[in-house]
Amino acid sequence: MFSALLDQVRAKAPLIHCITNYVTVNDCANMLLAAGGSPIMADDPEEAAEITAVCGGLTLNIGTLNRRTIPAMRLAGRRAAELGKPIVLDPVGAGASALRTATAKALLEELPVTVVRGNISEIKALAAGSGTTQGVDANVADAVTEENLDASAAFVRDFAARFGTVAAVTGAIDLVSDGERTFVIRNGSPLMSRITGTGCMLSVLTAAFVAANPGQALEAAAAAVCAMGLCGETGAARMGPQDGNAALRGYIIDAVYCLTGEKLDQGARYVLG
Amino acid sequence: MFSALLDQVRAKAPLIHCITNYVTVNDCANMLLAAGGSPIMADDPEEAAEITAVCGGLTLNIGTLNRRTIPAMRLAGRRAAELGKPIVLDPVGAGASALRTATAKALLEELPVTVVRGNISEIKALAAGSGTTQGVDANVADAVTEENLDASAAFVRDFAARFGTVAAVTGAIDLVSDGERTFVIRNGSPLMSRITGTGCMLSVLTAAFVAANPGQALEAAAAAVCAMGLCGETGAARMGPQDGNAALRGYIIDAVYCLTGEKLDQGARYVLG
Amino acid sequence: MFSALLDQVRAKAPLIHCITNYVTVNDCANMLLAAGGSPIMADDPEEAAEITAVCGGLTLNIGTLNRRTIPAMRLAGRRAAELGKPIVLDPVGAGASALRTATAKALLEELPVTVVRGNISEIKALAAGSGTTQGVDANVADAVTEENLDASAAFVRDFAARFGTVAAVTGAIDLVSDGERTFVIRNGSPLMSRITGTGCMLSVLTAAFVAANPGQALEAAAAAVCAMGLCGETGAARMGPQDGNAALRGYIIDAVYCLTGEKLDQGARYVLG
Repeated sequence: MFSALLDQVRAKAPLIHCITNYVTVNDCANMLLAAGGSPIMADDPEEAAEITAVCGGLTLNIGTLNRRTIPAMRLAGRRAAELGKPIVLDPVGAGASALRTATAKALLEELPVTVVRGNISEIKALAAGSGTTQGVDANVADAVTEENLDASAAFVRDFAARFGTVAAVTGAIDLVSDGERTFVIRNGSPLMSRITGTGCMLSVLTAAFVAANPGQALEAAAAAVCAMGLCGETGAARMGPQDGNAALRGYIIDAVYCLTGEKLDQGARYVLG
Repeated sequence: MFSALLDQVRAKAPLIHCITNYVTVNDCANMLLAAGGSPIMADDPEEAAEITAVCGGLTLNIGTLNRRTIPAMRLAGRRAAELGKPIVLDPVGAGASALRTATAKALLEELPVTVVRGNISEIKALAAGSGTTQGVDANVADAVTEENLDASAAFVRDFAARFGTVAAVTGAIDLVSDGERTFVIRNGSPLMSRITGTGCMLSVLTAAFVAANPGQALEAAAAAVCAMGLCGETGAARMGPQDGNAALRGYIIDAVYCLTGEKLDQGARYVLG
Repeated sequence: MFSALLDQVRAKAPLIHCITNYVTVNDCANMLLAAGGSPIMADDPEEAAEITAVCGGLTLNIGTLNRRTIPAMRLAGRRAAELGKPIVLDPVGAGASALRTATAKALLEELPVTVVRGNISEIKALAAGSGTTQGVDANVADAVTEENLDASAAFVRDFAARFGTVAAVTGAIDLVSDGERTFVIRNGSPLMSRITGTGCMLSVLTAAFVAANPGQALEAAAAAVCAMGLCGETGAARMGPQDGNAALRGYIIDAVYCLTGEKLDQGARYVLG
């Protein structure tokens, strides 16, 4: 099923406008290119909306947000809304500072966000309006586990319904919901948390999938989450005895580059409830 | 012929001031180090001119330009002009927004730019004052091909003459002209377009070649273009079945690191007309 | 001896707030993750102090400083001081511009900096209030050598005493002093200077060591310097005939990821005087 969605990314090569943090921006650009999309980064208010207008989709990532880029996110988001282009919001570090929580919440409320992609602590911070996020990683106490899976899935489903969006909450177990149906996804490797940027890369990948598959935001987001997790597994399996997180980072991007629809369909591990 | 120009880069280790986008800035720094040069990045108006003054050359790259870095580019450019230091302009995304087109055009008109290095759509946007650039990649309709080669070469030559600069227009076929003589270069690999930053890296590499070879801007720019293309070929040839664009990015930088004058002279494929 | 300090980093996984340049920021983040720590980058004055408050340590790196990030450094530094959290200052390019020299000097004088980590030219610029730094690399005339070792060690020791900090001055020979005792360290590889960011990466690694080992700033900084140098040796030894600086950069981060206490104790080459 997901192979057709990947095929559309490869066929349409969506151009994605990324207003994103400078920590992982190069990885985000190469991830889009690996998937068959194309990146453009532009974060000044003077050009943000104009760049969005020529793109197939928009990613707003609040890591290293600042007083100049926040207005650019708003302008780009409004233009995307006017033109009916999909918006992916990555609330990096929501809960870790009032600025991040408030900015992410405002963007979510003001804009017709297609997909919110974050870890569980970030999503809880958005739901509560404050949070206990430890830096940019999820708080251990928040983690989605087999034990709290039903309650976690209900939370994510309700969050999606409340904000009228697709919520893609990633961690050891991933939950992707549109407020009605929920994908429970078990791809990925624990080693992915040893690299900076797996979340950011997933967010731009999600934007590419959603942009290339209009009207199928839930399935497209789930496909992107499965693809990223599967490529994390492929990358981790490729690691040799001298390899560490630097090698893994490249292996994951390369696995996306080499990913075929057949591999994705065979490797995707999810249930839809 | 180009080997002597490369030798000068290695011997003089030019320090290049880069005001450049944050997407590919790390690759640009490592590319300069691979070639034997040295990078310094500084983009605040308070120090930009002072940094330029201690450098051998300046690169102005307008990707992710903003209201703070545009004045820094201008100040650095003026100081470079006063001191007779070479300036390379990379008009990333000119044509994709009015801000980019206008900024690149203004820099080109105000400063004694030594080399403009861009794709054909960006150069056309500069020539026209507006454009049809799709994001940061060249529009397919603009591409230099064997069929339109004569007309394309004439356009690039005229552009260089009009602006009193060397124009280095890169794509499947590269054209480098000073308004009189034109190099037609056929190095490179189509896989290079699957990595972010090959254009940006080439621009800083060009600055290193031009800074190390004063009075030979045309030849130095052509040598840089050949070197980058050749290293793209070397990198692409090194790719294994699990490798993708992340591996290729490293292989290209490593190929520049390992490049010798002999390899460059043997591998360079150009005609000078 | 150093193995116990590394164990603490791995056990405590300190979260480090980095206000750092955008050239090497991704490498800094992955270096922290390789070591067992965790990074968060935040450089807007509106959130900088709040982010520092949830972290175990702070790194202030003045590469690509600007008018927005300088106040953020100050606010974050003051909060760290109030909360007794360690601060590492990396005066990148001090001596190359008045803005850099003055900013680094002001931060050093205003804040209770735990460790200053720089090259010898940067430290001399801080001591003199001006400098001859060539870009971001040390001036050859300043280099610490076997011939001037006693005088250099005395300079570094006096600098540390004068500013009430630990000074970690790195180059071919590294000197780490708290104003009384001085480590002379002979780990490392000359190839490390062919990569951008080895200094920046060492600075965040130092912050992780210092944050995880309170009350042992001198030993923790020396352990970080040895670890980085040793991993530079490991990375250089791993290089194949087609490898260059891009490969080396990954190998060094991977070597930190794979570093054990045993390897560190066996490989560390230092004398304490």
